[in-house]
Amino acid sequence: MPIFKHLKNKLGVILLAFLLNKIKVESLEHKYSLETRFIEVPLDHFAPSTGSQTFKLRYLINAKYHLKEGPVFVYTGNEGDISIFAQNTGFMFDIAPTFNALLVFIEHRYYGQSLPFGNASFASHENMRYLGTLQVLADYAFVVQHLKHLFFENVNPYDTYPIVAFGGSYGGMLAAWLRMKYPYSVIGAISSSAPMYFFPGMTSCDLFYEKVTRVFEKYDGHVQCTKAIKLGWDVINNLAKTQLGMDFISKTWKLCTKLKTFEDVDLLHNWLSNIYINLALSNYHYPSEVNTPLPAYPVQVFCEKLTTSFFNDTKGLIEHFGHALEIYTNYTGTKRCNNINNSFEDYSEFAWGYQKCTELIMPTCSTDADMFITKPWDYEKYSLDCYKKFGVKTLDPNWPLRAYGGKNLKYYSNIVFSNAMMDPYSCGGVTENVSNTIWSYNINDAPHIVDLRRADTADNNYLIEARSFHIQAIKKWLNMK
Amino acid sequence: MPIFKHLKNKLGVILLAFLLNKIKVESLEHKYSLETRFIEVPLDHFAPSTGSQTFKLRYLINAKYHLKEGPVFVYTGNEGDISIFAQNTGFMFDIAPTFNALLVFIEHRYYGQSLPFGNASFASHENMRYLGTLQVLADYAFVVQHLKHLFFENVNPYDTYPIVAFGGSYGGMLAAWLRMKYPYSVIGAISSSAPMYFFPGMTSCDLFYEKVTRVFEKYDGHVQCTKAIKLGWDVINNLAKTQLGMDFISKTWKLCTKLKTFEDVDLLHNWLSNIYINLALSNYHYPSEVNTPLPAYPVQVFCEKLTTSFFNDTKGLIEHFGHALEIYTNYTGTKRCNNINNSFEDYSEFAWGYQKCTELIMPTCSTDADMFITKPWDYEKYSLDCYKKFGVKTLDPNWPLRAYGGKNLKYYSNIVFSNAMMDPYSCGGVTENVSNTIWSYNINDAPHIVDLRRADTADNNYLIEARSFHIQAIKKWLNMK
Repeated sequence: MPIFKHLKNKLGVILLAFLLNKIKVESLEHKYSLETRFIEVPLDHFAPSTGSQTFKLRYLINAKYHLKEGPVFVYTGNEGDISIFAQNTGFMFDIAPTFNALLVFIEHRYYGQSLPFGNASFASHENMRYLGTLQVLADYAFVVQHLKHLFFENVNPYDTYPIVAFGGSYGGMLAAWLRMKYPYSVIGAISSSAPMYFFPGMTSCDLFYEKVTRVFEKYDGHVQCTKAIKLGWDVINNLAKTQLGMDFISKTWKLCTKLKTFEDVDLLHNWLSNIYINLALSNYHYPSEVNTPLPAYPVQVFCEKLTTSFFNDTKGLIEHFGHALEIYTNYTGTKRCNNINNSFEDYSEFAWGYQKCTELIMPTCSTDADMFITKPWDYEKYSLDCYKKFGVKTLDPNWPLRAYGGKNLKYYSNIVFSNAMMDPYSCGGVTENVSNTIWSYNINDAPHIVDLRRADTADNNYLIEARSFHIQAIKKWLNMK
Repeated sequence: MPIFKHLKNKLGVILLAFLLNKIKVESLEHKYSLETRFIEVPLDHFAPSTGSQTFKLRYLINAKYHLKEGPVFVYTGNEGDISIFAQNTGFMFDIAPTFNALLVFIEHRYYGQSLPFGNASFASHENMRYLGTLQVLADYAFVVQHLKHLFFENVNPYDTYPIVAFGGSYGGMLAAWLRMKYPYSVIGAISSSAPMYFFPGMTSCDLFYEKVTRVFEKYDGHVQCTKAIKLGWDVINNLAKTQLGMDFISKTWKLCTKLKTFEDVDLLHNWLSNIYINLALSNYHYPSEVNTPLPAYPVQVFCEKLTTSFFNDTKGLIEHFGHALEIYTNYTGTKRCNNINNSFEDYSEFAWGYQKCTELIMPTCSTDADMFITKPWDYEKYSLDCYKKFGVKTLDPNWPLRAYGGKNLKYYSNIVFSNAMMDPYSCGGVTENVSNTIWSYNINDAPHIVDLRRADTADNNYLIEARSFHIQAIKKWLNMK
């Protein structure tokens, strides 16, 4: 099928990613002693007639701090190789000794090494039909049932077992949904930076870009960073009027393919926007490496590369921006050129693109109140783009509401929703207590999912207190003092 | 596929059933003013890539007593034509004026006129894969969402709407599960005679036949009914030793096909057992017609046909039994012969057989403590039989526990589980209060789902009080006085 062809062309990239990943996992296993296991799970949890067809789902396990009858902490994997999430969820390792906990990180189907049809998993619609959040939750419930029998003696299925779910971002949504859909599976869930309400009709589309802008505004004191970024859009669009101007941008910003058409300029806009978003999401107070290696406070470092001196100098602005963007695109200095095509670099990106088109439709729009180029939310266009990319229609906008209840969380219990207030995704978070068992905890001055990361000497009090809140919640669920 | 061939052979029967059904629905519509509607629902609620494929689901509606902003009472359809369940759920009609309620009866996919692939719905495994309880619940949540927008103005999806689910037997399980899986969909559920715990590992397999026996024992005073039935098994087995004996049974009981083999005798055992079970299930205090026309107290009428005088008279016993069985098989006197094959008479029987093989595995066994022929519970044999019939493997026995939590009901709210204490299915019911919002109500001296039937002048106080309990529960959920 033509829509899947760019994946085949990228085989080299995938192979390289696979090898790099192998190396990553090995060093990770040394650091955190993670053991890799696989379990056969039903391919389709909802079709009785095909219920006996299974595939291998991966999970990682750490029993270093585990004592008999100690709790099991389960991370509900996100959209990627589970080892990356295990590596970036140091909080679970930090608190494991306190609880004598067993740690388990379950991989999300269709990511990492949990591909239901191996290399053919994305080869057809038929093979991709099992990529849906409700199937994923059923996987997690299945694995938890299995773990219960593995790690507790004489299991009585009607007793409550000390099993707690953890998840961040999309994984945080899954942790919360696991507790909501399978309350007998886990006793509670720590759901960090989860945009639970970031669905059509639940959250105003302008808030996300506004929140990104607020992160950059922090550094306006020095350099009028957001003013420079806004000016940037006009300068780009002016230059884009001539081929000479487009050539200048292409050369200065080391684009792999020269800008030639309006469509190319549109791709450039998206590429820039995504860099700003990712910088804001990763604005940690120490160097990090989630998607790419970054310095501490990368937004600040980015902004410091811009100065007001070039505000009337087109050439100078493009050059300064070029240097600033390298903070994100080429921090280690090894990249030859920048690819602004929005094609998928690997299976994970493809799978995530598919999920965002089918179930996880999070409406965004930019307005005059933010630093982005103005772009309305257009569901029709979004759907059409999805159809072009994946050949599937987007689900009806009422689906998330029907499947998960939207803001109707009062029926559930034992979930902590933590929100980092400098995280753009907090716009779709549960930022107020829902009941006396569904809590919200807002962390001042903190970026995306920072509370689930390892403790660091540079952590501020807001963050230390947030983690302490999590520990108290877990102790309450486990009836500990 | 050969396993589906007997359906094709039965086309005449199906056509006839369809015509009879048409007539039934028409008279029903006159009596209860039910309007028939269809709604397009997703074929597969859990596969985003096929989410746009839909089929027509039927629902029946009665707005006779409905006033604006009045509640919506939704019956969650069982394993059959929804008009039959509408006809037998008079309670909803009886209380509609008190509540100014709109009544809706939703048909279960793969039954009645809600066949996803029309006449081809049972033609292949691929076409049958969407027959599963979780798909059914998603249908019901979908229809409820639709009804909300149809019957309430300016719907805010985060407000609570006065929509109550009702269901009996398997439909009662679905009503409870709807509230459990989609608590924002309905405010509460009246779940009558629902064998929620009738799954492997949850209920002892001997209880069901024991409960049936208790119903027949009620009439032992007159005629030693259960003693006669027990004796019956021995007499049959003795006669079955010779072809002459088998011929005598075949002729006396008007079997359509003569008994010839051990397998035939086994079929005869099952046929008899099912008649006893159905008589017990339908032992209402007035004439009824759920599966077949029956007199009031059919078990009593059956038992009265037997007398102790034939206890030493093989021929007399078989003849008396023949007359007694006609209470169930031929009460209107129009039937030519009795078919003891366990082949499926129509699509509904086929679909239900499939569901009992794939998801709804309810273990039964008979012992010396009951009046049935001794038969252990044999999961392997059950699975093998299912494979022979449908070509599918039974799901793993842990599935119901994982999907619905088994006896872990404490996490949920606003459900009344009513159990009729003379109903064999009460052995798998929720017969004790679970919490201060999950109630159990046990009705003395009552048969299967009787509380959801229309009020009758012959109703006893137990039954009147049970219905009053339901009304109070609904008023509480709706914040009425």
